[in-house]
Amino acid sequence: MVPRPTLSPTALLESPLVKDRDAGSMQRQLYERLQRAILDGSLAPGSRLPGSRALAEALAISRNTVTATYEHLAAEGYVQPDRQGTRVTHLSSLALQKKKRVRKTAGTPATAQRLAQIKPGAPRAETDAALRPGVPALSHFPLAAWRRALDRAIRGAGSASLGYGDPLGEPALRAAIARHLSMARGVRCAPHQVVIAEGAQEAISLCVRLLSNPGDIGWVEDPGYRGVKAAMHAGDMRVVPVRVDAEGLCASDADWLRHPPRLIYTTPSHQYPVGAVLSIARRLDLIAQARQHGAWIIEDDYDSEFRHTGEPIGAMQGLVEDAPVLYVGTFSKTMFPSLRLGFLVLPEELAPGVQAPLEEMLRGGHRFEQLAMADFIESGQFTRHLGRMRRLYRGRQQALRLALHKHLKVPHEIEGGYCGLHLTVRLPAHFDDRQIAADALRRGMAPSALSGFAMQPLATDNGLVLGYGNTPTELFEPLVKRLSLLVRASQRS
Amino acid sequence: MVPRPTLSPTALLESPLVKDRDAGSMQRQLYERLQRAILDGSLAPGSRLPGSRALAEALAISRNTVTATYEHLAAEGYVQPDRQGTRVTHLSSLALQKKKRVRKTAGTPATAQRLAQIKPGAPRAETDAALRPGVPALSHFPLAAWRRALDRAIRGAGSASLGYGDPLGEPALRAAIARHLSMARGVRCAPHQVVIAEGAQEAISLCVRLLSNPGDIGWVEDPGYRGVKAAMHAGDMRVVPVRVDAEGLCASDADWLRHPPRLIYTTPSHQYPVGAVLSIARRLDLIAQARQHGAWIIEDDYDSEFRHTGEPIGAMQGLVEDAPVLYVGTFSKTMFPSLRLGFLVLPEELAPGVQAPLEEMLRGGHRFEQLAMADFIESGQFTRHLGRMRRLYRGRQQALRLALHKHLKVPHEIEGGYCGLHLTVRLPAHFDDRQIAADALRRGMAPSALSGFAMQPLATDNGLVLGYGNTPTELFEPLVKRLSLLVRASQRS
Repeated sequence: MVPRPTLSPTALLESPLVKDRDAGSMQRQLYERLQRAILDGSLAPGSRLPGSRALAEALAISRNTVTATYEHLAAEGYVQPDRQGTRVTHLSSLALQKKKRVRKTAGTPATAQRLAQIKPGAPRAETDAALRPGVPALSHFPLAAWRRALDRAIRGAGSASLGYGDPLGEPALRAAIARHLSMARGVRCAPHQVVIAEGAQEAISLCVRLLSNPGDIGWVEDPGYRGVKAAMHAGDMRVVPVRVDAEGLCASDADWLRHPPRLIYTTPSHQYPVGAVLSIARRLDLIAQARQHGAWIIEDDYDSEFRHTGEPIGAMQGLVEDAPVLYVGTFSKTMFPSLRLGFLVLPEELAPGVQAPLEEMLRGGHRFEQLAMADFIESGQFTRHLGRMRRLYRGRQQALRLALHKHLKVPHEIEGGYCGLHLTVRLPAHFDDRQIAADALRRGMAPSALSGFAMQPLATDNGLVLGYGNTPTELFEPLVKRLSLLVRASQRS
Repeated sequence: MVPRPTLSPTALLESPLVKDRDAGSMQRQLYERLQRAILDGSLAPGSRLPGSRALAEALAISRNTVTATYEHLAAEGYVQPDRQGTRVTHLSSLALQKKKRVRKTAGTPATAQRLAQIKPGAPRAETDAALRPGVPALSHFPLAAWRRALDRAIRGAGSASLGYGDPLGEPALRAAIARHLSMARGVRCAPHQVVIAEGAQEAISLCVRLLSNPGDIGWVEDPGYRGVKAAMHAGDMRVVPVRVDAEGLCASDADWLRHPPRLIYTTPSHQYPVGAVLSIARRLDLIAQARQHGAWIIEDDYDSEFRHTGEPIGAMQGLVEDAPVLYVGTFSKTMFPSLRLGFLVLPEELAPGVQAPLEEMLRGGHRFEQLAMADFIESGQFTRHLGRMRRLYRGRQQALRLALHKHLKVPHEIEGGYCGLHLTVRLPAHFDDRQIAADALRRGMAPSALSGFAMQPLATDNGLVLGYGNTPTELFEPLVKRLSLLVRASQRS
């Protein structure tokens, strides 16, 4: 804290102000001096301020400056004018006491209980740490083209787009996304069903806030994406983990009976993190059961634009008519993470009813970025960029797979990697995956521990999730060699 | 829904594919044809697919294309290879039934109960509607300078800033805000206390999520800002309205006793919407009581950079050392709304404890915009822009006041307007302010009804909140003339 000099009423009159031709500056100085003197008690409560004429003469300033300052102090309540002049207000001195301040903290934790339910994640790695899952190839992004698209959007839209805009997002972008999704992902939707959000995380959070009440049950994949648990806890839902196997989310009749869900979160095209594809039988069953139970499915389709083998796996949303599915997508992987642009596709039947609550919750904005993104899609630049990245990631995935085969000198199984930006290496239970991840982080590598994704980890939920999106091909061999040493060093006694 | 042609297994062999030199295109066509035939039942469950050689010959395509397609269908679970060939999976037909679909909707409202607590606001006006409160002068924003700052930020930071970045915001912007606030608003803070948010609304929502548990009491000003009620309801807090008078928020001993708050929301420098300044005595009392009760004050300082008379009213946050105050600010008024950039200043004692939960909740991003904003502040462009806007708004405020004096032909009282972008006109109770606002909206004007801001409206909470930020000076006289007619027409019988 800046020390506050104690001024006697006399000192107030004696010490000169810093001369300035700007009358506003003189007034500010006088205001601050008087304010401090009142707050620190050197101008006692009830005492009278000097007459404006006397003070103006003593300080060699204009009398107007003094009267304006007194009026302002009166407006804030520091002083009160009366017939004899201007008196200092009696102020509660409790807040001003510097010592022995009472603050009741028992029973009032600094952070809310709901946040304490979220177990902290591993220390956050730098975006460019090697093998970090979920980060696209940043240096391959066509930044100059994006910069031009943004510049064009600002010049084209002009100051008319400085206001809030449509809370659900720029109409041009919603239309471009609807067209792209129907072609690339088999999603059935019209532009009015598309809601622009701050990345997939906000889209998921919107689902929770729109469709759940406190105490409702939310199913999450186990192991699965941590962010959805945070969003459900924030909405005071009961989070129930449901196991994932080689065919994806594996809900039993007992699950439906004992924990009937309100929301079901799933990553059907590329399970995060283990890479399973939800089989067509399970997809149809999940849709049928969700309909019967009045539940909603949140389909997070975070990186399936990058399919490395065969045809893309189509979205669940488009599989049957009127599926009870909220489709969530993001441009974090297909464009770049700091764009913070994602979207939610509402089911047709839900769209009209949630329009008003969405307008209450969302504020629009980021309109130039959204217009530039619409332009990027409509001009074909987005599709070309996706094609280039798909080839790049395919090559990196093969190189990582080969490096693991050659240099990971422990028994292991590779899962996934046929899609997206990461694959998963399962390890025998006697290696400590969290230990490996922590050791790796200190060496500039950021694989994630598989066990960290599970709420009720089994012995088999042990291994490493390795990102290959943002790591150059030539580094995989030396990185895996180092990793192999760390894995062996982590062996539990 | 796109109609799905029914194909017999024979038709599958007979109708040719569209020839394309791209093998991927042929594979996609075959995949889609088989997928549809399985889903619509024309390829019966348990039936066998044609041999790959036979199908390749019949369709005159490469056998590799057929085997790759079969493998892909098997990976998704549409078919299963066995010793005799490839068989169609038995799929649950429930989800595929088009008629008589059962959906349990009783007891499962389309939107959650917590959202139903928020009464819908008035229809949303266009940003450029005349007299709309809270919108800055968009056509006076130096958009070309901003475009250059953004362009410079992208070229300067490059692809290194495409990743998520610090979840709490770009360090350069947090430092620039801390410096600006200490000089312009008397806020005491270091850069690590500043958290970048999506506008003031997200900053308030962070306070609720960080510091409250469901059922905790939140005080809001009555009349007051609607957005804070939405944020508190979303956090399942109990919202308690506390009256506002000419000296701002007026909490009695009974309020403290009967509804001890966890959070207190206030707009001390310029009460929204009535414009009162929270007096120094009440500020000190609020701080002292909050400390005693373990409550936190959310100080929303949304537009007090634009003070039209006397010195700026300093922030409560800086009034005394270690005030239990979370200071919220926004660039929506000082820059432009669609920037969606606001900030929260954490109390020193709270900052370390909430770092981890904030990193869980926030994703960073918008880094180029944040870097451009930091540059705008550090280069002095921001302060110069504020000075120009302050002069503009001062002139507009005076012109509106004059127009009301001349042309509003009903008894009324003007409040506020000495700060920011709006003033409030109180009207006698026999005029219907909601009626006036609705009529005005149909005529391109967007004043807000004062009664709409109150949770427990008194008869005196009747009038119009008029924005002058984005309305040109020469329009006030004709607008007020029209408004005067609408006011008179709204008289209750």
